[in-house]
Amino acid sequence: MKEIGVGVIGTAFMGKAHSLAYAAAGTAFGDGLRPRLEMVCDIDPEIAKAKQIEMGFARSTTNYMDVINDPKIELISVCVPNAVHREISIAALNAGKHVWCEKPMATNVPEAEEMLAAAHNSSAQTMLGYNYTQNPLVQSARDLIQEGVIGSITGFHGIYDVDNEADPDRPYSWRMNREASGTGANADVMCHLVSMAHYMTGSEVNRLVGDYDTVYKTRIDPQSGEERAVDNDDVCSALVHFDSGIKGTLRVSRVAWGRKCGLRWEVHGSQGMICHDQERLNELQLYKRSDDPRQQGFTTILSGQYHEPYTAFLPNAGHTLGFIDVKVCELHNLLCAIAEGKPAWPNFGDGIKIEKVMDAIDRSALSGQWVDV
Amino acid sequence: MKEIGVGVIGTAFMGKAHSLAYAAAGTAFGDGLRPRLEMVCDIDPEIAKAKQIEMGFARSTTNYMDVINDPKIELISVCVPNAVHREISIAALNAGKHVWCEKPMATNVPEAEEMLAAAHNSSAQTMLGYNYTQNPLVQSARDLIQEGVIGSITGFHGIYDVDNEADPDRPYSWRMNREASGTGANADVMCHLVSMAHYMTGSEVNRLVGDYDTVYKTRIDPQSGEERAVDNDDVCSALVHFDSGIKGTLRVSRVAWGRKCGLRWEVHGSQGMICHDQERLNELQLYKRSDDPRQQGFTTILSGQYHEPYTAFLPNAGHTLGFIDVKVCELHNLLCAIAEGKPAWPNFGDGIKIEKVMDAIDRSALSGQWVDV
Amino acid sequence: MKEIGVGVIGTAFMGKAHSLAYAAAGTAFGDGLRPRLEMVCDIDPEIAKAKQIEMGFARSTTNYMDVINDPKIELISVCVPNAVHREISIAALNAGKHVWCEKPMATNVPEAEEMLAAAHNSSAQTMLGYNYTQNPLVQSARDLIQEGVIGSITGFHGIYDVDNEADPDRPYSWRMNREASGTGANADVMCHLVSMAHYMTGSEVNRLVGDYDTVYKTRIDPQSGEERAVDNDDVCSALVHFDSGIKGTLRVSRVAWGRKCGLRWEVHGSQGMICHDQERLNELQLYKRSDDPRQQGFTTILSGQYHEPYTAFLPNAGHTLGFIDVKVCELHNLLCAIAEGKPAWPNFGDGIKIEKVMDAIDRSALSGQWVDV
Amino acid sequence: MKEIGVGVIGTAFMGKAHSLAYAAAGTAFGDGLRPRLEMVCDIDPEIAKAKQIEMGFARSTTNYMDVINDPKIELISVCVPNAVHREISIAALNAGKHVWCEKPMATNVPEAEEMLAAAHNSSAQTMLGYNYTQNPLVQSARDLIQEGVIGSITGFHGIYDVDNEADPDRPYSWRMNREASGTGANADVMCHLVSMAHYMTGSEVNRLVGDYDTVYKTRIDPQSGEERAVDNDDVCSALVHFDSGIKGTLRVSRVAWGRKCGLRWEVHGSQGMICHDQERLNELQLYKRSDDPRQQGFTTILSGQYHEPYTAFLPNAGHTLGFIDVKVCELHNLLCAIAEGKPAWPNFGDGIKIEKVMDAIDRSALSGQWVDV
Repeated sequence: MKEIGVGVIGTAFMGKAHSLAYAAAGTAFGDGLRPRLEMVCDIDPEIAKAKQIEMGFARSTTNYMDVINDPKIELISVCVPNAVHREISIAALNAGKHVWCEKPMATNVPEAEEMLAAAHNSSAQTMLGYNYTQNPLVQSARDLIQEGVIGSITGFHGIYDVDNEADPDRPYSWRMNREASGTGANADVMCHLVSMAHYMTGSEVNRLVGDYDTVYKTRIDPQSGEERAVDNDDVCSALVHFDSGIKGTLRVSRVAWGRKCGLRWEVHGSQGMICHDQERLNELQLYKRSDDPRQQGFTTILSGQYHEPYTAFLPNAGHTLGFIDVKVCELHNLLCAIAEGKPAWPNFGDGIKIEKVMDAIDRSALSGQWVDV
Repeated sequence: MKEIGVGVIGTAFMGKAHSLAYAAAGTAFGDGLRPRLEMVCDIDPEIAKAKQIEMGFARSTTNYMDVINDPKIELISVCVPNAVHREISIAALNAGKHVWCEKPMATNVPEAEEMLAAAHNSSAQTMLGYNYTQNPLVQSARDLIQEGVIGSITGFHGIYDVDNEADPDRPYSWRMNREASGTGANADVMCHLVSMAHYMTGSEVNRLVGDYDTVYKTRIDPQSGEERAVDNDDVCSALVHFDSGIKGTLRVSRVAWGRKCGLRWEVHGSQGMICHDQERLNELQLYKRSDDPRQQGFTTILSGQYHEPYTAFLPNAGHTLGFIDVKVCELHNLLCAIAEGKPAWPNFGDGIKIEKVMDAIDRSALSGQWVDV
Repeated sequence: MKEIGVGVIGTAFMGKAHSLAYAAAGTAFGDGLRPRLEMVCDIDPEIAKAKQIEMGFARSTTNYMDVINDPKIELISVCVPNAVHREISIAALNAGKHVWCEKPMATNVPEAEEMLAAAHNSSAQTMLGYNYTQNPLVQSARDLIQEGVIGSITGFHGIYDVDNEADPDRPYSWRMNREASGTGANADVMCHLVSMAHYMTGSEVNRLVGDYDTVYKTRIDPQSGEERAVDNDDVCSALVHFDSGIKGTLRVSRVAWGRKCGLRWEVHGSQGMICHDQERLNELQLYKRSDDPRQQGFTTILSGQYHEPYTAFLPNAGHTLGFIDVKVCELHNLLCAIAEGKPAWPNFGDGIKIEKVMDAIDRSALSGQWVDV
Repeated sequence: MKEIGVGVIGTAFMGKAHSLAYAAAGTAFGDGLRPRLEMVCDIDPEIAKAKQIEMGFARSTTNYMDVINDPKIELISVCVPNAVHREISIAALNAGKHVWCEKPMATNVPEAEEMLAAAHNSSAQTMLGYNYTQNPLVQSARDLIQEGVIGSITGFHGIYDVDNEADPDRPYSWRMNREASGTGANADVMCHLVSMAHYMTGSEVNRLVGDYDTVYKTRIDPQSGEERAVDNDDVCSALVHFDSGIKGTLRVSRVAWGRKCGLRWEVHGSQGMICHDQERLNELQLYKRSDDPRQQGFTTILSGQYHEPYTAFLPNAGHTLGFIDVKVCELHNLLCAIAEGKPAWPNFGDGIKIEKVMDAIDRSALSGQWVDV
């Protein structure tokens, strides 16, 4: 089994998730490339060292260029704040390294275009962390749709609600500042929903009208103790048209109490419907008009051996995959792309299309007009 | 127990639902007015006679003015196609009769205004059949919201999907013709959702942007056997602002396979969330941020004795109410309004506000602009 | 439409439920017999008079023989405490009246046998109020099973949990006294579960081992203020064999916090499974092994027009029936039996088989032995 | 971070699950012992070699004594057929190695007693793979119960249905032969349920009556093509008493179509109820009688940061754990036991109590008597 040296830049939630995926991927899939955990990077030297030991890397650094320049490293995880995605990804691509970059791709379209240009100038593979699309059951749903199980697609409707910022007493942070972090729920949450809309429909949003709501207009600044205006969006909604001709709706919130990972979507078809709720990631809902009316309804399909690569982890249905397993699947898709030299979905070319939808929502919400993507 | 003579005009689904409500209301509530089934009207004399016998009325007629002019009748159900609501309701109000009119109120705002004027000129009571708002559990949810259980309202999001017209092979009908029936899903389905938005938030939509989709552009005309263009909406969506300052989203479809009565709504609050799905009308979902985090989640509240007037039917939770029981509650609210001489919700004054939202959605969808209601 | 005069003896929950059913049945079904509410009986003269007015009867009485002897009354509802079922039912049958008796049939098998003998000596029809078997969706499930949709039946497993007596602070009552009320959860709750086991399998329990638990051994007597021993069962369980050769399990509790009407059953088959939960009475769960494995799972079937007599109330799925509607269906089955002169299920002959199972559970729980029914 | 050399004997589902757990545990937990994958064993040399490479071990063998005698290996996974658990576990313990043995412990009580004796003679730690008890959310449920959130425990009821053998056309195998494999569903499935009953109640079954059903009496022998009698149980049920004084029910089936991992249990309490369904392993149901009746119901608690060690994998609720993550938790508990030199639950001492319950069920089912454990 061939090995591939990997480095991880950033050690928060996603740095850990990537590290767990690297640790498990070889054993789970047993074919293709086996990741070898070479180096981890964090700007805080104590954290860097601690995480090296905790997460099982051979070396650590505080300088991300050490990762990029390490000859033993071929694949680099970019798990840093969005504002630095561009800089690190481009440096890694220029050094010929494969890049696994967390979502969203960048903080604006021009940055994402620079990243895409660097990818085009490189023979390395890229992958963006739109992990909900990598769930075996979701991929099986896409297959079913493409096989015509629900007829032709007639609409896509998605919601992604979380409650990260739902507490009105939560203090002001850079996330609530448009200059520092760009848009709010649009950048943080909507991007996932757009990735799912593109993936499930095999089509892209090309026209839309969007709206923002800042539910908590001010928050207490923990430094000054004074109220400070929040100037980006807590809630973001859009009516959308796709280039395939279908229409749909997208709405997200970061202030929706009780929703922890409330990504719910529906693909409407001329002969049925398929729905999914990320909080029950092992369950798919399918309705087929062709079923006998007395016995008809939504069927709850459990993840199982008929939804590959489920059996890389478990032999049969009911045992359930988790978030980390899905991250391993995502990595596996990237490793296959590297091994075969052909791109996986969603690479930087797919990612920029998502960025452009978020940008269009922003333009529309600010202008009050329907806009083209 | 005082009686009240009632007449029903129209004998399809809603004519029967009103008749069932009249038959049950006295026994269920045991106080106030007991309906006495006097006369039923259908334009087909055979149907009129058959329904009189089947549904237990004393007399029948093919001329609705017989119902209106009958001195024994004080309350009239208007269960005819939307296009005739105006004419019959106004005649009934002018004759001093109370009117229980099915939704939507009319086919356009000017008609609804005429109806409202007639109501204003009468001391009779009016009620519109927005029955989903009359569910004891939904009314209890509204009480909880008003008591602050979920803090201040921060958003309202609703979906109402049905599959009445989801079959692409379903033939062309007058419902698919804008001239004959007005808008499609907007008039038929959205009106219910707007009633719920207004009722649950205690506020009204005052600005919006809407969008239509005609998913099946043509249907086969059963007469000619030829394809005919569908010129009203199968799907209707809107981003909305309320006069209380909150924002929300509304979307409906008449072509959503598998949804039978898929009215699902969420009221987001600063301290929690409340959700409901009409297909499980006896269950309410409540999340409170104040709960202990280890034990926190959405609580499924079952209809029961703490959600009056549940005990008019059943002594305690778990036995479940049905659609007809809720229709009996709706009638009970109207009978109380009549007995007490003070209006119930939603009367014609409330209804016209719903009509104006549907009208604004139509204007926006056709113009591609945000519009004021 | 032919009328039938009815009388109701007893005015608590079930007296009201029967009255509501009588009020609605004619309008709902529109064919067959239309009930005419003649007389209601309660031993308290004030309640009798009040209920007459509230529930819409022509007359009232405190003497149940007045109901039995009234020549205008042909059908009598027995909605009194279990200990009096025998006496009233036999008197009514001897007077040639049809009897609709609430469950359980009696307090012991010899009483039930006397009742059955009276029924055999009469040409009148009998019906027992095992209402959960009368749900159109449940009856449709039985049809599906009989058509072989889940292959041959391989097992029946049922639970019926309620929390009526779950509060340990609830005072002592006659229900907790074996001499006064017979068995506890066995008589009150198990009888429903046995009715469902017999109905769904088309077979009868013929051998079993049972067990009792008295969870709260003492309760405070509200009169004396002192602790008093509870000497009947809070929980009752059994392993059962059916005469068809299948086996199963039955368990019930009256002290199961949170279960309001928690009657859940599963019919296991060689080719699938069907499940139901009474708290979601409009939903059936069906799994078929013949479905495509990638799309396989439990299908949630909603009550609808394909599950007659659903359309006696509502035109199509999603509108949902309630407990009272199901009671109307039960009455309709009895009225058809009366009109056609042939017995409905469950009549007294069916009921005694249920009583014998409860009796066998009691014998087994007390003796610690497997017993024949 | 200190390392520990590990060896895995057996390479089927559980061999892989242990290997995945070893690969991930260090990175997930970051403290304590980091497993180092030393040697894998399979009796087939080609499989042994292939699995070494696929699953990332340093060496492989066909002789399990190589694993036991390897000085670099301190912890050994026993993932072989039940009949060999005794032999390998005892050899490993005698060699001073820690043992992580899959469930059930052995094929009968005397074997299990030998294993326990070997454990008592060793200072090594033991762990049995009753993984469903190791779910952070389930462990949190146990904490809640012990803190009195549902009052005192009043009953335990569990079901574990799977459909492994539900297909009547499935050929005869050694699993259906009592001599070759011991009991059927009792050994395979009931053991998990008993582990959960003991774990959740903190008490042990001490008296019971059990029953077996062999639903498919014969199966086709794939060798001879002839029908062969199945002589162990497809279904196994018991009424049980616990040494704490509570009672309960247990039932399992290996022929229950549609149930993939249908382990559902309920702990009834004097002040509430807690329920879990393994197919939704990230959701717990909690009912508390102390809640406001208008807002009362079962709360669906999602796994999250308040249910440690959840945050070894994910930062907050909604992201969901899977089966493999829970296996990592199980391993972590064993590694802590090794590091701290004090036993984890369930070790061989706990396991033998489970074996004795299965044995008692067998005795009771064969004798038709209540028996002591």
